[in-house]
Amino acid sequence: MRIDIITVLPELVESPFSASILKRAQEKGLVEIHLHNLRDYSEKKFKQVDDYAYGGGAGMVMSIVPFSKCIEQLKSERSYDEIIFMTPDGVRLNQQIANNLSLKGNIMILAGHYKGIDQRIRDHYVTLEISIGDYVLSGGELPAAVLSDAIIRLLPGVLNDETSALSDSFQDNLLAPPVYTRPADFKGLKVPEILRSGDDKKIEEWRHEQAMERTLARRPDLLKNNSSE
Amino acid sequence: MRIDIITVLPELVESPFSASILKRAQEKGLVEIHLHNLRDYSEKKFKQVDDYAYGGGAGMVMSIVPFSKCIEQLKSERSYDEIIFMTPDGVRLNQQIANNLSLKGNIMILAGHYKGIDQRIRDHYVTLEISIGDYVLSGGELPAAVLSDAIIRLLPGVLNDETSALSDSFQDNLLAPPVYTRPADFKGLKVPEILRSGDDKKIEEWRHEQAMERTLARRPDLLKNNSSE
Repeated sequence: MRIDIITVLPELVESPFSASILKRAQEKGLVEIHLHNLRDYSEKKFKQVDDYAYGGGAGMVMSIVPFSKCIEQLKSERSYDEIIFMTPDGVRLNQQIANNLSLKGNIMILAGHYKGIDQRIRDHYVTLEISIGDYVLSGGELPAAVLSDAIIRLLPGVLNDETSALSDSFQDNLLAPPVYTRPADFKGLKVPEILRSGDDKKIEEWRHEQAMERTLARRPDLLKNNSSE
Repeated sequence: MRIDIITVLPELVESPFSASILKRAQEKGLVEIHLHNLRDYSEKKFKQVDDYAYGGGAGMVMSIVPFSKCIEQLKSERSYDEIIFMTPDGVRLNQQIANNLSLKGNIMILAGHYKGIDQRIRDHYVTLEISIGDYVLSGGELPAAVLSDAIIRLLPGVLNDETSALSDSFQDNLLAPPVYTRPADFKGLKVPEILRSGDDKKIEEWRHEQAMERTLARRPDLLKNNSSE
């Protein structure tokens, strides 16, 4: 898999891609991440990529010119399965979308900054608009890193133990049950006896009960999704 | 405002806090960000912070011991308004939660990694569990950065133009209208005439219509929230 991220602030997302799982996935050759600095595609003297909004109002708008140049160049080199724009008014990212995207070959992600990007970029180039949630951030860089992380950890071979991703929250529309590790007694705070019983069947039942209880208490909507399938 | 982030991978979130708005907010003295490496609080020889899960199963669980040591030390130095754990089964972050948190003084954010953290940390220390969305990531570091960004950009003085944050999507339960900047004609793709008319009243009306249309098409649920208030 290959992910190209176009941003005016590549330095903002350098560290998430240089550490931990995302780093190892690249080292193993399971994914290529390419960060493109939008300013390199500006035709202006001071490498500006934004300008005032037509019609006035607060905030600068990113111009179609450098985005177009960068996107066209990348598209001339290979074909892309999706050109994704990270925006709070896009489709809300969920595990199913992450699962689907993890099966793609080449993905381009556009990270906006400032007030927004020229609508014509969205109309003309973008094939998928994704929001990571109902809140506003200072740019699309962190969302691009979040989306990449959600996708990349699903690629076969990225996690050490393949069952690990499958038992996560949301993969079965149930939240994960509580987990505990040593010490068994920490200043009077104790691990539930059942988990130390060695009775695998009972432990499995307890975990399922806990997962159901937690889902009912916190996210009953997930259980509805289950039954309607 | 002060934000303390406890993580086993501080290097993962260094760059988001060293660039752009988050960097400037710190330079202006509007927020202090402190990253704490959980390993520094491990009492084990090789600075481990995780261990096998009681009851078996895939994935490692983060121990209460180093978290407790770090949290207790920070709490002995100042009082915290919230101790937040980033987890996919927490309350889903929205703009209202970000607004509320931006009014706090000291916030601690715990970023988990591996399979999860010992439930006793959540039961005993955590005051607020927040999810940035219905998807699983490889750790709580990116979510901690996302939450920090959402909060910090709301602090007075962080954005250059204070009206800029108020006109964002979600602040009025409407998605933002499309924006355009120069050139007016890019290879035949044109900016809507109205935005170049100079008629402020008509432009305002057009933007409101567009915001309504977009919200109706993409997020009718936001309009329901409006009318029920």
